[in-house]
Amino acid sequence: MDKILLSHGNGGLENNTLIKDIFYKNFQNSILEKSEDSAIIEDNLAFSTDSYTVSPIFFNGGDIGKLSVCGTCNDLAMMGAKPLYLSCGFIIEEGFNIIDLKKIVTSIKDELEINGSKIVTGDTKVVPKGSIDKIFINTTGIGKIQKNSISSLNLMEDDVIIISNSIGEHGASIFAQREGIDLETDLKSDCASLWSIVEKLIEANVDIHALRDATRGGLASLLNEWAINSNISIEIKEELVPIKDEVKGICELLGFEAYNLANEGTFAIALPKSEVSSALNIMKQFKITQNAKVIGKVTKEYLKKVILVSPWGTNRFLEMPSGELLPRIC
Amino acid sequence: MDKILLSHGNGGLENNTLIKDIFYKNFQNSILEKSEDSAIIEDNLAFSTDSYTVSPIFFNGGDIGKLSVCGTCNDLAMMGAKPLYLSCGFIIEEGFNIIDLKKIVTSIKDELEINGSKIVTGDTKVVPKGSIDKIFINTTGIGKIQKNSISSLNLMEDDVIIISNSIGEHGASIFAQREGIDLETDLKSDCASLWSIVEKLIEANVDIHALRDATRGGLASLLNEWAINSNISIEIKEELVPIKDEVKGICELLGFEAYNLANEGTFAIALPKSEVSSALNIMKQFKITQNAKVIGKVTKEYLKKVILVSPWGTNRFLEMPSGELLPRIC
Repeated sequence: MDKILLSHGNGGLENNTLIKDIFYKNFQNSILEKSEDSAIIEDNLAFSTDSYTVSPIFFNGGDIGKLSVCGTCNDLAMMGAKPLYLSCGFIIEEGFNIIDLKKIVTSIKDELEINGSKIVTGDTKVVPKGSIDKIFINTTGIGKIQKNSISSLNLMEDDVIIISNSIGEHGASIFAQREGIDLETDLKSDCASLWSIVEKLIEANVDIHALRDATRGGLASLLNEWAINSNISIEIKEELVPIKDEVKGICELLGFEAYNLANEGTFAIALPKSEVSSALNIMKQFKITQNAKVIGKVTKEYLKKVILVSPWGTNRFLEMPSGELLPRIC
Repeated sequence: MDKILLSHGNGGLENNTLIKDIFYKNFQNSILEKSEDSAIIEDNLAFSTDSYTVSPIFFNGGDIGKLSVCGTCNDLAMMGAKPLYLSCGFIIEEGFNIIDLKKIVTSIKDELEINGSKIVTGDTKVVPKGSIDKIFINTTGIGKIQKNSISSLNLMEDDVIIISNSIGEHGASIFAQREGIDLETDLKSDCASLWSIVEKLIEANVDIHALRDATRGGLASLLNEWAINSNISIEIKEELVPIKDEVKGICELLGFEAYNLANEGTFAIALPKSEVSSALNIMKQFKITQNAKVIGKVTKEYLKKVILVSPWGTNRFLEMPSGELLPRIC
C-alpha cells in the first residue's frame, strides 16, 4: 500500500490500521494509546479534536457548524466531561459566500450555548479556489471530568448495553441528500449535543462503565472497539436495535448495513443490569433519548467479538466496518 | 462584500476585520477577545489552535509537519507557557503518498521532542481527490504558563523592542520555491521552535512585558497589534532591522515589504531598557537567536501607530498589512 485511500478515513478497520501503524508508532505515549474519545490530561481534563469536512455543508438536521460543536463536545461528554472551552479553526475557500459563513457561525454559537461551552481561541485560513471544497472546520475541546471511571476498557461481564436512539440516521440522510434521493418522509441527521443527558446520568450517580457515541463507522465500530479494548464479547439482539424504515430502505439501496452508518447524536452505554432502570428513567426525559432501550449485553466469552443474534436464534459476527464507507460524512 | 477573499486570511487588516465582525461578535467572551497568541484558561493554562495549509508541503527549512508543531508550540511559548499537550487533526487527499505522510509524521515527532511536548489526541479524515490540495493539518496545544504577565496589553512607555533574528525568511523562501526562482544562496525558512529560549529568559527572571512571533502579516502586523492593544506607539529604526539581501531581492521582485512577510521562528520582545543586556546575553547562546538585537522602542505618543525612522531621519508609518499577501504561507 503506497497511497492513502478513502477507506483510511472510514472510522473502521483501515482507519485504525493507519492510526496504529503511523501515528501511534511515531507519537507513542500512554495517553494517546488509550484510544478513548478524549485524552485525559492533568488528572481531570478531557481533551479532544475533530476536523469536519462534511458535504453538503448544510444538511437536513444541521450544518457543518452545528456538527463541529456537537461532535467535539460529545467526545468530551462521552468521557464524563463537561465541555468548557473550544478552539475553532476555519479553512475557507476563496469566493465562499459570507452569508453562508454567517449561518455556520450562528449554528456554532447556538450549539455552544446548549453545551454551556465557549470558543476561546481560533484561527482562520483562506486558501485559493480549488485548494479545498468550500469549508473545513476543526474544533478542539477541553472539558472537566465529572465522573472518572468511564472508559472503553471498563466493560464487564453481564454489563447491559443501552442504545440512546434509532441508528444510522446521520449517514442515511447525508447520503440521500448527496445523491438527490427524494424521501417522502422527514429523515434527518440525528446531530445533537449530548452533555445535558450525560450530566443528569452522572448527577444521579448512575454507575456508567462505558459511554461512546456511534459516529464514523457506526454502532458496529463502537461495539467492536469496546469488545477489543475490554477483552470481552458483546451479544446484540438484532430485533431490539431500533432502525427506521427509511434508513433500512437507503441501506438496501446502498448495500450498506445500518450498523455501519454514522450517527452524530446517538450513543451507547454499558452498565450493570441493576443500573438500567435509573438510566432509562433519566433518558426518557429527553426528547432525543426518549426511545433509549436495552439491545444486548456483555457475555462471558473473551473473543473480542460482537455477536448479532437474529430473531430466529441464529448468530453472526458484526464485524468492524471496512472498505470505502461514505466519505465526508462528518 | 459578499464573498470571502484571499485577503481575509492575510494575517493583516482584512483578516482582523473578518475575525472581529463575524467571530468575536458571535462567540463573544472575554478570553477570546483578549486576542493574544493563546487563550488563558483555568488560571495557568495556555490554549491555542492553528490550521496549516502551507504549499509546497516540503520546503527549504522544513515541512508542513515541522511547521504544525513549531507554529502551535510557539503560540504557547509566546504566552510564557511550556508546551505540554498537542492534538493533531489530519485532512488528507485520497491518493496522497504514504511515504510523504510518514516523512511529515517523522518531522512532527522530531519537533515534539524539541518542545518536550506530545500528541495525546488526534483525528484523521480522508477526502476524495479534488476536495483538498494534498494535506492540511490542525494542531491545538495546551501549555502551562510559567510567567503570568506576558501580554500584548502590557507594553509601556520606554520599553525596548528586540527582534530575535533577521526577518521575512519564511515568506521569501516559500515564495521563491513556489515560483521556481533559483536562488544561488541558501535562503530557507526560519521555521523553528522557540520554547527553549523563552524558558531560559523566564528562568533568568527577565522582565518580559510582551512576546510575539512575527508569523502571517510579519513584523508589521505584530508591531501594529502591540501598538493597538497597549495604546502606545512604537518607533523602529529602519537601519537596525536585520533583513538578508536575498529577502530584499525577493521583496523588490514581488513589490512586497519584508516587514509584511511571514516568519515562523522569529519573534519580538518588549521589555524595560534595564533588562536588555540580560535578555541579549541569553539569546546569544542559541543559534537561532544569536543575532538578536534592539530595533526600536515604545514612545510617548498614544497614536497606536508604528513609526519607521529612516537612516536620514525621515519618518513614515509602518501600516498593518492589507490586501492579498501570500496565500498558503502557513
